[in-house]
Amino acid sequence: MRVELLTVGDELLLGDTVNGNAAWLGRRLADHGVRVTRSVVVGDELDVIIEAVDAALGRADAVITTGGLGPTYDDLTRDALAKAAGVALVRDAALERRLRERVARAGRELKPVALRMADVPEGARILGNSAGSAPGLRVELSGGVVYALPGVPFEMRTIMDEVVLPELARSAGLPAVARRVVHTAGMWESEMATLLAEVEEADEVELAYLPDPAEVSVRITVSGDDAATRLDGVEARVRVLLGPAVYGAGDETLYLVVHRLLAGRSETVATAESLTGGLIGAELTKAPGASATFAGGMVTYATELKERALGVPEDLLAEHGAVHPDVAAAMAAGVRDALGATYGLAVTGVAGPDPQDGRPVGTVYIGVAGPGDSRIVVSPKLPVPEGGPEVRPVIRRMTVVHALDLLRRVLLGLDVTGGSEQAQAHREDLG
Amino acid sequence: MRVELLTVGDELLLGDTVNGNAAWLGRRLADHGVRVTRSVVVGDELDVIIEAVDAALGRADAVITTGGLGPTYDDLTRDALAKAAGVALVRDAALERRLRERVARAGRELKPVALRMADVPEGARILGNSAGSAPGLRVELSGGVVYALPGVPFEMRTIMDEVVLPELARSAGLPAVARRVVHTAGMWESEMATLLAEVEEADEVELAYLPDPAEVSVRITVSGDDAATRLDGVEARVRVLLGPAVYGAGDETLYLVVHRLLAGRSETVATAESLTGGLIGAELTKAPGASATFAGGMVTYATELKERALGVPEDLLAEHGAVHPDVAAAMAAGVRDALGATYGLAVTGVAGPDPQDGRPVGTVYIGVAGPGDSRIVVSPKLPVPEGGPEVRPVIRRMTVVHALDLLRRVLLGLDVTGGSEQAQAHREDLG
Repeated sequence: MRVELLTVGDELLLGDTVNGNAAWLGRRLADHGVRVTRSVVVGDELDVIIEAVDAALGRADAVITTGGLGPTYDDLTRDALAKAAGVALVRDAALERRLRERVARAGRELKPVALRMADVPEGARILGNSAGSAPGLRVELSGGVVYALPGVPFEMRTIMDEVVLPELARSAGLPAVARRVVHTAGMWESEMATLLAEVEEADEVELAYLPDPAEVSVRITVSGDDAATRLDGVEARVRVLLGPAVYGAGDETLYLVVHRLLAGRSETVATAESLTGGLIGAELTKAPGASATFAGGMVTYATELKERALGVPEDLLAEHGAVHPDVAAAMAAGVRDALGATYGLAVTGVAGPDPQDGRPVGTVYIGVAGPGDSRIVVSPKLPVPEGGPEVRPVIRRMTVVHALDLLRRVLLGLDVTGGSEQAQAHREDLG
Repeated sequence: MRVELLTVGDELLLGDTVNGNAAWLGRRLADHGVRVTRSVVVGDELDVIIEAVDAALGRADAVITTGGLGPTYDDLTRDALAKAAGVALVRDAALERRLRERVARAGRELKPVALRMADVPEGARILGNSAGSAPGLRVELSGGVVYALPGVPFEMRTIMDEVVLPELARSAGLPAVARRVVHTAGMWESEMATLLAEVEEADEVELAYLPDPAEVSVRITVSGDDAATRLDGVEARVRVLLGPAVYGAGDETLYLVVHRLLAGRSETVATAESLTGGLIGAELTKAPGASATFAGGMVTYATELKERALGVPEDLLAEHGAVHPDVAAAMAAGVRDALGATYGLAVTGVAGPDPQDGRPVGTVYIGVAGPGDSRIVVSPKLPVPEGGPEVRPVIRRMTVVHALDLLRRVLLGLDVTGGSEQAQAHREDLG
């Protein structure tokens, strides 16, 4: 089964919006064994939309459109589909009632133009939108079927998951395919590929690497009979081969894993950040309920503050500057004590673009101070990107990931270097 | 002049990568008066790439491709262009020498497959890549001209800005068009559109609104004779009409504006963050040199810490809970004093998804404490998104923008409510 995506909207051609919908749809469909073979963006022009739908159906079995279903006059997907099908737009009474009720509940007045969202090409099926106003539409044309979804990401995703995906999978009589994504931190893609070579050689198993700064995920695809059962076995083998670098699978994120580990032991962490400026705290508070495990944080960007607020010894800073393993350890212990947390997590380093105190960009020390004054510092070997304005944000992002991952490994009693070249450069037990 | 974009790569169809290149190119070309009329993504298949190039040139004058110029065997754009032009790929001696030198400088060994990057369709022009290994290519086909650029964003952007854009603008003999983007904070799009109605009515002036949470930018386009000169006049009028909500234009960002204002007066700010968990500190340290104006920050996520670390009065917290204007003011003064900064900037509020202490999601108080113990608290009226998983990140992001903007207004001696409905709900001078 071949599916094409058609995104409608001037704002995408102008670059005011990045096409995140197409990426989400591509991933979602791939996860269900459906291949997106092409993805096209056109502007808000009736004839162009009609031509693009026709052309897509000439190549594919189904087309999923997003955008152009809203209330304003430049929302033209509805009109284009009616014209392509050679039918009229008719106002749907139930949709109109629902629109009026939604607007009344919000205490607003219904603008006449909004009723366009109750117009449906004759013979089209309405795809209920439990998340918003504009419904999706399913229209059969001579070349195949078109699923038209709204452009608002949350509404598009809701209709896709609730209606379109199950229907596509059924109608395609898809071969059994099972997929899962396994997430790692602190390991390089090339290293992973070497470790997983034996898995990739197996029949009906495919691996795809999805690298992000300092986090690499691997998507496992198993096809054929018993795909779902065999996937469990393959995943287990992948976890064995990658060892402590694996932190989760599917929707699990590193910050949630750390949060759950701490919550399960009724422990807390406090952060002391330098080059990351607060990003680690921001990460640890991404999910609601974070206050149970995140005691708070200090951003000691200025060197002098490391001494005054965190008790980092003055002579240490005078001798080595702020970027030093002993400083990371002292910061971690200092913030743990200052905020009364179980663990202190601290980072100091050089985010760039220029070296600092004679230390090159990408030099980073991460310290964890735990109960009983145990202290561990690692210095991950960061793959510093070659020049360009992206250096600083990338170094900061990699530092956040490595810091959370170090805490995870400490909480699990794992080898903090993970056997990985990336983290092996330093490991110091300081107490 | 009509330009189409063609992005090549399986990873885009699978959704492993979001098509940021297309968005960047669309914006860049629009800024130079060139219209992108369609944007297509295809996978790594030779015949499909050739067909897509042909089809695009059937509609447009020029096609810009990104991706498929790397060293591996699934990089097929080079081969597709040679085949489309009916010519052979020939190895370019100068490119080969440059590749060998780059690899030698990095102390690595050149893999034979990497030499593919020195292959060029006969008759094509090489577009020098000062930022990486794979050069761009300019190929003339019967239907028009193709500019093939690498997929690595930084390299793509460099070649685009250095070579392709100037050439396109010249060869198109573009009508004079001048564009500038003006940025505002703390104002709604609908409010802006009302204020700017008179500007939009003028001939040869177009406005486009680019909304982001809590930040709205407006792109001004002036066409016709003297466009550049008239643009200055229109921009000045826009700034007058929007008043203190305007913080900058073009590449200026809110955090840089705040940084420069502080730097110009040799003053500093310290932050105390609750719901944002460190995001304000992270924003203020995005640019190098931040330590001159950012003294440091405290993330007092737990209520108890607001009292202990920032000196917020215990009875205040006991009576009102943590989400209260007086708490924001006390946090701001507390962090200013604790870290010895000129200003304290503090936020407390409810990020959601659930209400807290009986206060609804989106309740946010932002405090600034300045020299002489002046204190100002505002509570922006945040447009809380309807349900969905996006509530929490959006509230956090809006809080960051409003906090930085409040400090900017205080530093400039502007009305802190900006005359804007969005910020008008509260404004309290507490000392």
